[in-house]
Amino acid sequence: MALLRSYVSGRWHTPGVDGTPLLDAVTGDEVARISSDGVDMRAALEHGRRIGGPALRELTFHQRAALLKVLATYLTEHKAELYALSARTGATQRDSLVDIDGGIGVLFTYSSKGRRELPNAKVLAEGPVERLSREGTFVGRHIAAPLHGVAVQINAFNFPVWGPLEKFAPAFLAGVPSLIKPASQTAYVTARLVELMLASGALPEGSLQLVSGSAGDLLDHLTPQDLVGFTGSAGTARKLRGHPVVIANSVRFTAEADSLNCSILGPDATDGTPEFDLFVKQLVAEMTVKAGQKCTAIRRAFVPSGLLDAVTDAVTARLAKIAIGNPANPDVRMGALASLDQREEVRRSVRALTDAGTLVYGNLDRVDTVDADSERGAFLSPLLVRANDPGRAEPHEVEAFGPVSTLLPYDGVDEVVALAARGQGSLVGSIVTGDVDFATAVTLGVAPWHGRLLVLDTDNAKESTGHGSPLPALIHGGPGRAGGGEEMGGIRGVLHHLQRTAIQASPRVLAAITGEWVPGAPRAEGDVHPFRKSLAELRVGDSVTAGPRTVTQADIDHFSEFTGDTFYAHTNPEAAAANEFFGGIVAHGYLIVSFAAGLFVSPEPGPVLANYGLENLRFTTPVFPGDELTVTLTAKQIIPRENAEYGEVRWDADVTKQDGTSAARYDVLTLVAKS
Amino acid sequence: MALLRSYVSGRWHTPGVDGTPLLDAVTGDEVARISSDGVDMRAALEHGRRIGGPALRELTFHQRAALLKVLATYLTEHKAELYALSARTGATQRDSLVDIDGGIGVLFTYSSKGRRELPNAKVLAEGPVERLSREGTFVGRHIAAPLHGVAVQINAFNFPVWGPLEKFAPAFLAGVPSLIKPASQTAYVTARLVELMLASGALPEGSLQLVSGSAGDLLDHLTPQDLVGFTGSAGTARKLRGHPVVIANSVRFTAEADSLNCSILGPDATDGTPEFDLFVKQLVAEMTVKAGQKCTAIRRAFVPSGLLDAVTDAVTARLAKIAIGNPANPDVRMGALASLDQREEVRRSVRALTDAGTLVYGNLDRVDTVDADSERGAFLSPLLVRANDPGRAEPHEVEAFGPVSTLLPYDGVDEVVALAARGQGSLVGSIVTGDVDFATAVTLGVAPWHGRLLVLDTDNAKESTGHGSPLPALIHGGPGRAGGGEEMGGIRGVLHHLQRTAIQASPRVLAAITGEWVPGAPRAEGDVHPFRKSLAELRVGDSVTAGPRTVTQADIDHFSEFTGDTFYAHTNPEAAAANEFFGGIVAHGYLIVSFAAGLFVSPEPGPVLANYGLENLRFTTPVFPGDELTVTLTAKQIIPRENAEYGEVRWDADVTKQDGTSAARYDVLTLVAKS
Repeated sequence: MALLRSYVSGRWHTPGVDGTPLLDAVTGDEVARISSDGVDMRAALEHGRRIGGPALRELTFHQRAALLKVLATYLTEHKAELYALSARTGATQRDSLVDIDGGIGVLFTYSSKGRRELPNAKVLAEGPVERLSREGTFVGRHIAAPLHGVAVQINAFNFPVWGPLEKFAPAFLAGVPSLIKPASQTAYVTARLVELMLASGALPEGSLQLVSGSAGDLLDHLTPQDLVGFTGSAGTARKLRGHPVVIANSVRFTAEADSLNCSILGPDATDGTPEFDLFVKQLVAEMTVKAGQKCTAIRRAFVPSGLLDAVTDAVTARLAKIAIGNPANPDVRMGALASLDQREEVRRSVRALTDAGTLVYGNLDRVDTVDADSERGAFLSPLLVRANDPGRAEPHEVEAFGPVSTLLPYDGVDEVVALAARGQGSLVGSIVTGDVDFATAVTLGVAPWHGRLLVLDTDNAKESTGHGSPLPALIHGGPGRAGGGEEMGGIRGVLHHLQRTAIQASPRVLAAITGEWVPGAPRAEGDVHPFRKSLAELRVGDSVTAGPRTVTQADIDHFSEFTGDTFYAHTNPEAAAANEFFGGIVAHGYLIVSFAAGLFVSPEPGPVLANYGLENLRFTTPVFPGDELTVTLTAKQIIPRENAEYGEVRWDADVTKQDGTSAARYDVLTLVAKS
Repeated sequence: MALLRSYVSGRWHTPGVDGTPLLDAVTGDEVARISSDGVDMRAALEHGRRIGGPALRELTFHQRAALLKVLATYLTEHKAELYALSARTGATQRDSLVDIDGGIGVLFTYSSKGRRELPNAKVLAEGPVERLSREGTFVGRHIAAPLHGVAVQINAFNFPVWGPLEKFAPAFLAGVPSLIKPASQTAYVTARLVELMLASGALPEGSLQLVSGSAGDLLDHLTPQDLVGFTGSAGTARKLRGHPVVIANSVRFTAEADSLNCSILGPDATDGTPEFDLFVKQLVAEMTVKAGQKCTAIRRAFVPSGLLDAVTDAVTARLAKIAIGNPANPDVRMGALASLDQREEVRRSVRALTDAGTLVYGNLDRVDTVDADSERGAFLSPLLVRANDPGRAEPHEVEAFGPVSTLLPYDGVDEVVALAARGQGSLVGSIVTGDVDFATAVTLGVAPWHGRLLVLDTDNAKESTGHGSPLPALIHGGPGRAGGGEEMGGIRGVLHHLQRTAIQASPRVLAAITGEWVPGAPRAEGDVHPFRKSLAELRVGDSVTAGPRTVTQADIDHFSEFTGDTFYAHTNPEAAAANEFFGGIVAHGYLIVSFAAGLFVSPEPGPVLANYGLENLRFTTPVFPGDELTVTLTAKQIIPRENAEYGEVRWDADVTKQDGTSAARYDVLTLVAKS
């Protein structure tokens, strides 16, 4: 690996120039050289739009989810190579775990969520059907379809594997091709990652491209169907967001910027409590994992003023035990910063912080290292600052992107909420307390300034994934300084890549567009009971009507006695008459749905394998003794599974009374064999 | 009404200068003068943040929803005043109906949706609880809390009532104060609207402010907690979106810009079909309602090339019947443009369009008017252009914001999808066809370029609200040129004003923060059955465990016979044994939930009034003859109603077998009396 290549327009492109050297963060030796010289950015975007997008849109959500799993499995088998390269960025084994296994984990999660939470379809029908007219001939619903552009993903240097993968996974699942532009400093890890991803064979051509080196005029060629996802400094986020083409074309722009994240110790957590220790341990971990080079690291540690000395002592004592040096040495707990330039940058920031506080641990210019030359490698001591006046601007505004944190005293919920907000928007905050009321008050107080909040206590300490780790099921991103963006969050991250469109139509047409039957759309009642049709034969709208069956007083009495459900509305005429919703004895809701099942069932063995649930059941009008029930069951949604001999069928069940009024309406969920 | 005032910082502010005259669009007489001279924009925003926001956040979603209804009712009573002013903007009675009753309708809809679709709480718990760890001690969920800023709403001149109200309603329901800045030309209508809104007494001080006149340095004072919603031209949208403070603070920015919306006639809809007539009627309506001054109006009408002559003839014949003139005259179907400047602007655009097509109806410089002076008033003839080459740039790029549309020929689905996309993002498109396959293909083809699509056919023609009308239940906004924004869409529009925050915590703490019980959180099983507690006494987490009850083969046989549900898995041992999910006779799911109800019920009359539904029922493991069922019922969510003597209680029902495995899990929905 000498000169990093780009993968664009269907081929590996080698730059025609020597490129800029990238140095090993530990030894200072050259690892690779980088340049995007000669890459035709316009053509690369067009390749994604013309080849990658259509190929992805040919697949369903479930098919793309299955490919993500193939990819994740392949990367797991080849991750040793990535670990070896990752060490050269200054990362310890533990740091690399977060980056590499963490990144692969995002692929697995999106694969799983895609299969469980999205339909096996090319377009998502989202939210309820909205009745837009009195007679029901005009209805509305939203669909979400993949944008026809490219997701341009501009990543930071600190997570060369997780960073690209957490952006790629939701884009791919959505059906939108990715173009990855890693930060140069660690781009050799991402370049190898992309080689492996392509070698997996899971990715349709054009669904993944890589630009190693400068982005050049990439953004000049964006269209309204493209997206930009950026992770990095707030300053760069500002520049990209304000790019004239991004502005002119309303390009969807998401930024995750480094922010002044806080951790807050509760007043209950005095020295000697387990929460005190949890706070100290987490702070030290966040300062030293990845040498503090995380957008999510704790920069501001708020401590009740009476506990400030104790916390200072405990944190410094713990920091003193951290061995710093060559990540290859198993004793080392903290490696190097990503580059000598980064170290200079951090030193500058810490000087600003110490203008407003005292350096209580570490030395800006000296650090003892294990198995490494502390000057050739980008090593830096952990640095703990203590701000005696929490109202000063610096700790809330100056971010030192390294193993640096500031302790700040506070008194009371109101003060700490106000101080936390002075970060002007953060990715994450922690509250460490055993006091539920304190946790609730602070959480609700600071929530509008945060994308994620962790309440750490003795209940969850063992299983907590920690302050610094974004999780694919939860959103990552925060308001204001943190970039105002949102990534991941489960299927929310997929929706960011889809255009939501409100569809207004007749029920017949809406059903055809969404592939789901809606009330008012035609029903097909044929000679064959729909339970006798395999998944291959069944069509949305296939229907059966059965009944009527009269519900007698004897039925109600018997059901009460048999089930034990002797609620007064079913058993006590006087009390039932006094109930404003009933006015007399009514049938049990469970009796109604049980009788309905007795009416619509086709009992002989056949393709319907099981009823695994019900949804959205509403008892809309009471059923009185003597009422006659009719049920209409209609195939509403058909979801074949990719890797099984059956799939899910959702049926609309509509139970009506002799006068046509609805008694109950619900969705019946079944498993049905494919053939 | 001479000099329009601003309502800022808790008082009406009268400008210290004469202001710019605003002229009656029909007569050219001066209606009012406008200036924001002397308004302290920074102070106004701060007033909203310090007074309005906290006052709104003291209320729950339901309380704010109730106030919206009070407001809407008050405005309905006083709407005659608004109609009188609206006529001076050039609007006919029908135009004003869309603006005024349409705007009030948005308030009613948000009031209703707020009560039905949001909890009666100050914070929204959104989406499912995410299990983040194996043992379940660490869980996640998203909450959405009101931003602590001001929603700055910059409106267009064409809907001086609907425009402000459709932005205000979701902001208010969300708990975020509004600052309305109307376009000057018709600001006298909005100023009166705001006077009425304040006079309604429904709005907490600071929740609504008005700036009449220029926005001055308003945007310079935005913080990361503020929002901007803009409606107007794409050019202005670009300027505002790129404002350095908007960029630097990641201010949430939504734009709805005028776009080149299309209507597409299906090839089935030949001359003489009802769809042909629907297409023609709708096109003429969209050209003439509000004199075509709608962001959503049809600018491009795509017609199968073989039908172009017939459509041209039919549209021109219909346009010829439109009486233009003083809106006060009941014969008049189309009024004036909003100003003489607007008319000049439209003329310029039409000249560009006719460079690439032929003017087939209307005269740029002459129009016959009823009861009005066509030169003093801003009158303009409807203008129909026919583009013989649909590939030319002008019809897809030049928007004439008046009674102007261009007919374009096409051949086949692929061509019309590609042509529609050349608008580079539109608010809305129509497809007029009786062919479901054509409707589906075109809808899915053009959806990524549209915020809303209407399929008009004979099924829904009578009830359709038409191409041009955004509805509060559906999103309004489109990608690219249309601004890349989204407004309304029911509760989605509320979420735009809330910060979504991922909360990671122990179940105990998560339950406290969200106000909803989650699995793993403490349960309180006291001496009193929770069904015996009124809403005032009941607490989230109150619980009852009941059972066990053995399910016997006789129970299953009896239930089959009683209900008629003789599905083979309950009745035929051999067939049941062959079923891969069961392996033998299993109890009916309906039997399980019926027995569970018999176990957890407290039968005597009491505060629990009714079980009105079930949700999310899943049968997780089969129940075999001899299995013993235990049920635990736990109060999960308590939603008191604002205007009734009861509320909803959602219970978690967990049915387990003798070995502790879950047999069924679901939410039971009940109505419970307040006392």
